[in-house]
Amino acid sequence: MADVRSLADRHEGRPLHRADFAVAPAQGGITAPAGFRTGAVHCGIKADASALDLVILAADAPASAAALFTRNLALAAPVTVSREHIERAQGVARAVVINSGCANACTGAEGLVHARRMATETAEAVGCAPQEVLVASTGVIGVALKIDRVVAGIRAAVPSMTLGSGSEAARAIMTTDLSPKEHAATVQTPHGAFRVGGMAKGAGMIEPNMATMLAFLTTDAAVSPALLQRALETSARDTFNAITVDGECSTNDSVFALASGASGVTIDEATYPALLKGFLTVSRELALGIVRGGEGATKLIAVTVSDANNVEAARQVARTIANSPLVKTAIHGADPNWGRIVSAAGRSGVAFDVDRASVHIGGTLLFEHGVAHDERAPQAAEHLQGSTVQLDVSLGSGGEASATIWTCDLSAEYVRINGEYRT
Amino acid sequence: MADVRSLADRHEGRPLHRADFAVAPAQGGITAPAGFRTGAVHCGIKADASALDLVILAADAPASAAALFTRNLALAAPVTVSREHIERAQGVARAVVINSGCANACTGAEGLVHARRMATETAEAVGCAPQEVLVASTGVIGVALKIDRVVAGIRAAVPSMTLGSGSEAARAIMTTDLSPKEHAATVQTPHGAFRVGGMAKGAGMIEPNMATMLAFLTTDAAVSPALLQRALETSARDTFNAITVDGECSTNDSVFALASGASGVTIDEATYPALLKGFLTVSRELALGIVRGGEGATKLIAVTVSDANNVEAARQVARTIANSPLVKTAIHGADPNWGRIVSAAGRSGVAFDVDRASVHIGGTLLFEHGVAHDERAPQAAEHLQGSTVQLDVSLGSGGEASATIWTCDLSAEYVRINGEYRT
Repeated sequence: MADVRSLADRHEGRPLHRADFAVAPAQGGITAPAGFRTGAVHCGIKADASALDLVILAADAPASAAALFTRNLALAAPVTVSREHIERAQGVARAVVINSGCANACTGAEGLVHARRMATETAEAVGCAPQEVLVASTGVIGVALKIDRVVAGIRAAVPSMTLGSGSEAARAIMTTDLSPKEHAATVQTPHGAFRVGGMAKGAGMIEPNMATMLAFLTTDAAVSPALLQRALETSARDTFNAITVDGECSTNDSVFALASGASGVTIDEATYPALLKGFLTVSRELALGIVRGGEGATKLIAVTVSDANNVEAARQVARTIANSPLVKTAIHGADPNWGRIVSAAGRSGVAFDVDRASVHIGGTLLFEHGVAHDERAPQAAEHLQGSTVQLDVSLGSGGEASATIWTCDLSAEYVRINGEYRT
Repeated sequence: MADVRSLADRHEGRPLHRADFAVAPAQGGITAPAGFRTGAVHCGIKADASALDLVILAADAPASAAALFTRNLALAAPVTVSREHIERAQGVARAVVINSGCANACTGAEGLVHARRMATETAEAVGCAPQEVLVASTGVIGVALKIDRVVAGIRAAVPSMTLGSGSEAARAIMTTDLSPKEHAATVQTPHGAFRVGGMAKGAGMIEPNMATMLAFLTTDAAVSPALLQRALETSARDTFNAITVDGECSTNDSVFALASGASGVTIDEATYPALLKGFLTVSRELALGIVRGGEGATKLIAVTVSDANNVEAARQVARTIANSPLVKTAIHGADPNWGRIVSAAGRSGVAFDVDRASVHIGGTLLFEHGVAHDERAPQAAEHLQGSTVQLDVSLGSGGEASATIWTCDLSAEYVRINGEYRT
């Protein structure tokens, strides 16, 4: 039986041993690692004058940078610009500029002009090259950015940057998230300790079109851009890319990582697992926070598929189950409906023999070798009353691969939230 | 702008001209074509003693047969048996036995024994070889079939078979469908007229696990099994395979076609379009009926994607939009939220240039060449108040291919229906 917690300590199928590099929670978020400061302001994108809607995250010196972008082909302008910049600057960045309230997506040529302007203005204020600035936007799709307000906001935010102001930054990137999402950890290595911090903006789509997932990680370890990219991609696979609220993938989804080196700890091949562990720990907290904050969500659901021939197959089955409206509504109603789970697995496109498969809900075996165990349904139903749900499907393929995807239940509240007319 | 109706008169991208072979609606359903009779009984699978739950559809003489089965790998026992039989009998069948109330899915070796028994009992009562009998079941997954009741039902149903009793049959295959779905048409050819009839059981999943789509077509044209299979596959692509309620594909989905030849009209390559037209007409009515009867559905939505490089690409984009919970909830709320449509298209996996794409809702242009036309949103919102919604997305790829997928909106009622605990 897979444990929700322990899975974040695995990567590429192999367990990472806790003893190797100790990870402990730390205070704060994105500015917990040394060498980073943030400045957040209300510049006038959001109607509410007390709501922060623009933030600059800057490193005190040029930092290694890594990024992951949405696979949605309708790329928002900031995604296009950030991708160009990180490539041109060969994995070095000084700052990230983020606005909330407007996604700057589906905005054509003008949108690109606006995103580039955000980078040049930030570069000028911070004192770096434009390609050393990454850009992220979240909010309504198809609406032009009020660029004059954004420029004024950048000019006000940069001088206001301070150390330890990460919590403000985490609030500034929210659109309609129920709460800010930030986390930090300290990682011990034989050569000293370093920190990893992060903040995320989830799919709080109470106002329509706000489906963006943005996440930002910082570390004060010294890491080459290549190793940083590897740690980001590997950790995201089991965290940010292992969650789904409704199967949607937005025009703006981006995850960025910056490494300042200010701790004096250098990451090489030998200490790489320490960085990965730190990234996994912080990313997992942020990713699960996004799912818990999914629209209308009342339960966090971990779908673990095991005995698969390879990890990709396990992930594909888990993802199909996690996105099944029938499974999500059944769990919302605390119905231990294993038949829907088997049916979703069956349409996932992964070959397996149903007569060798089994389904557990909350550790209770409900289906195995073609035989139903509905006499145990009450026990499984009790588990489903809780706020964290564990579904386990063994494909019985004789393989040893497994994968977990996290999702939330589908409630009438989701429909209400997403069906309301934009006002 | 694509018209919902006209699309059913196309196949393989080419329009079929109405003048070629006239199709007119006919009375009745599955028994409208000559040479078929049905007998339906209550055998005791459904709790309600007044509810029909078993039906035999039989041809007066051996008929050509064709079939399409679910792509779900968790095949229900009746699917496995029907597949074997139609292959062994080389496309000839005498009867179809169908029960509702129990899907005989995820029932292991015992389930296969039960499905085979349904065929042998029907064969004996009708007077044919077991492999000339096809089997279909719909209802709850993972529950053993009460085979003694089913056998008694078969023995009672066969002697009660009559001509023109198709409407009873259409009711007997319902589980929790809101209404029976049947349709028939007369097709004129230079060599005389023939009929096509059909009935279907939709995804009326008010009781959990009832997601099966079953459809049955009959014709009194004389058709070779190969040509019948081709007409069934081709027409299903634009009808039964072009609908989606929630992206689920069940363990039991099956579509069968039988051709009696009783009309004296023989279908060859020259008259094949007449058969196809008849199949498209009847299948379209049944398929749209299934979508209209989707759980909690208040609107029928046609998603048409055009200017694609090929039909598969158009279909993939249309299907992604049609299955998007964000699009479906927006339409439920009458919100002309074109941004969600673009975003869903963007994550479909089909490459296109958003700056050349356009979106119409109910014929109103809302987005084109990267520019939003939200000033026209009120007009589109008015269209969305109706019960039939047309979404048009042009990919601007310069290709000429298009495809339509039909779906329904996603309502809080869907969640309520599917979240209720099984009782």
